[in-house]
Amino acid sequence: MSKSKKSALEEKKGVSFSEITSKSSIDAFKNKRKADIDTSNLIESLLNKDITALSRAITLIESKNPQHKVKATNILQACLPHANNSIRIGITGVPGVGKSTFIETFGKHLTAFGKRVAVLAIDPSSTITKGSILGDKTRMEELVKDENAFIRPSASGDSLGGVARKTRESIILCEAAGFDVIIIETVGVGQSETTVHSMVDFFLLLKLAGAGDELQGIKRGIIEMADAIAINKADGDNLKRAKLAKVEFNRALHLYPTKSSNWQPQVTLCSALKNEGIDAIWDIISDYIKTTTNNNYFNTNRNEQNKYWLIQTIEEQLKSNFFNTPKIKKALENQLELLETNQTTPFAAAEYLLKLYS
Amino acid sequence: MSKSKKSALEEKKGVSFSEITSKSSIDAFKNKRKADIDTSNLIESLLNKDITALSRAITLIESKNPQHKVKATNILQACLPHANNSIRIGITGVPGVGKSTFIETFGKHLTAFGKRVAVLAIDPSSTITKGSILGDKTRMEELVKDENAFIRPSASGDSLGGVARKTRESIILCEAAGFDVIIIETVGVGQSETTVHSMVDFFLLLKLAGAGDELQGIKRGIIEMADAIAINKADGDNLKRAKLAKVEFNRALHLYPTKSSNWQPQVTLCSALKNEGIDAIWDIISDYIKTTTNNNYFNTNRNEQNKYWLIQTIEEQLKSNFFNTPKIKKALENQLELLETNQTTPFAAAEYLLKLYS
Repeated sequence: MSKSKKSALEEKKGVSFSEITSKSSIDAFKNKRKADIDTSNLIESLLNKDITALSRAITLIESKNPQHKVKATNILQACLPHANNSIRIGITGVPGVGKSTFIETFGKHLTAFGKRVAVLAIDPSSTITKGSILGDKTRMEELVKDENAFIRPSASGDSLGGVARKTRESIILCEAAGFDVIIIETVGVGQSETTVHSMVDFFLLLKLAGAGDELQGIKRGIIEMADAIAINKADGDNLKRAKLAKVEFNRALHLYPTKSSNWQPQVTLCSALKNEGIDAIWDIISDYIKTTTNNNYFNTNRNEQNKYWLIQTIEEQLKSNFFNTPKIKKALENQLELLETNQTTPFAAAEYLLKLYS
Repeated sequence: MSKSKKSALEEKKGVSFSEITSKSSIDAFKNKRKADIDTSNLIESLLNKDITALSRAITLIESKNPQHKVKATNILQACLPHANNSIRIGITGVPGVGKSTFIETFGKHLTAFGKRVAVLAIDPSSTITKGSILGDKTRMEELVKDENAFIRPSASGDSLGGVARKTRESIILCEAAGFDVIIIETVGVGQSETTVHSMVDFFLLLKLAGAGDELQGIKRGIIEMADAIAINKADGDNLKRAKLAKVEFNRALHLYPTKSSNWQPQVTLCSALKNEGIDAIWDIISDYIKTTTNNNYFNTNRNEQNKYWLIQTIEEQLKSNFFNTPKIKKALENQLELLETNQTTPFAAAEYLLKLYS
């Protein structure tokens, strides 16, 4: 860049090639400075709890543009020291269980006593349709108007892993922007629930009182992850069945081995529509935070989650690098054919492919 | 090698360096021929149902000696066209459930009507102690004397993956040696049961009638894998409790979604000691084979298992190559430290390490 400046040792010879170059590099330099200033302004506003800045930062994280990615990395790095001071709550339940109404009522309950609440979403359908069935702002009409709330629809992406990454990075930004409670919402597809579970402190499962056998058809893995089960729409004619369901779920939860958090999952009734039982759920969560902070599980768990995501990201990338190598793709097809016709063993085929790759 | 032979164009000049070389290469050639002959003899004997040859071939598969590995690969390759014609049955149950007695009685029942039965074992403890708590020949005194039975203790190895590989390759050898029924026995540790399940056609869980809540403390994943549950020691005073347990297990099994085999798992009572209910278990297995052969699940499942082992082996090796690279080991430690002190994100750390590796 110093070359573009006039020097006493240089003679001026009209418009030279070097001067053209120098003009464009000056522009680039100016642009870079401008971008740097933009980024620092954005960071400053974000740390000052400016929601527009937070939105813009999340958009940069979600962008595929390489320049945006550089900016996003810088913003994240600057936000890291200010992150980590929130309670991260995962909420799931099948469609129809009343997630939006619940989050609206629950969120209002929290902002009413001064909490700042961010709602993010992981919508597995967004990885396919690029649309979004969750986190739609129009669903939570009251909460979206609340100045202490921030609602962001699900990122879209090529894979659940991609969406998960963006959501995890958004959590850091929300925390740096001073949000006390981060709610991550997802819908009842096994894989996305595991993903959400691996990035939250507390996992809440919303259920309805069904007719007949309460355990029928429930994915056991999801019940096993729950720190609390809230049976929603426990009002009017539903109340009796909800109470029965509570007994059933309590029985089911006792069949599982004690969690490493040492926390005994709770079952509770609520009606988000009538704003009943919502405070009890916050009490359960507060209780959980107290218990797990005291026994140090809270921090250990966050560290373990970070390690999990580190290892997970590496492993996914190693596999993707291998299986997307053109010569491996072709050779794998051949080996699978040999395998299907019993002309090779899985281990011989694996050795062949690994040798080809190295 | 042709250089070592006398040529009309060469003069003899006493003992030359080349003659010394030639002597050793002739020896090597002779040794190689001898090894080749040994291997073909071994293969021929094995295909002629010679149990000593089968034992020797399995020993070669289990050996860490590189020359043995070459031989083992050749033998496997020769056996492959003669493999795949057996029923592979996985049997598991906690210590004390009577696995040895059951396999002895069950094995004798099968050899009595002309079946040839091989019993292999996957003993998770053998990966640690290099010893073996399973597959010990002295445990099955009757079956071991039966000329239509072959009992092989668990391979030992550095990892469950290593033991699994050896067992899968031993299955191929046993099938090539004309065994109709291959029993793979394991003990109740979750991981080894999943391993066995992924290499058999039919998975049998042995249980005892316990006191009180039959479902308490049972690993659900294992019940979910079972194609049949046999409640053993269902005799004398135990019979009543065993019948109650049967009802409980039947109820539990109905809570799971239909298997992709379309097979409804069966619960049955038996007493291996008194040789009661053993024929019914073989009937269930025969039924299963008929059903799954008709709906083509039997073959599809074997193909899927082969693919699973291929992908699994590759993925394990990719990870192991990465994480055992010295510079990665060192850098990973640093990154984990940065992660724990919130100076980096899991994704930034992963990117850094992957870049360092490439």
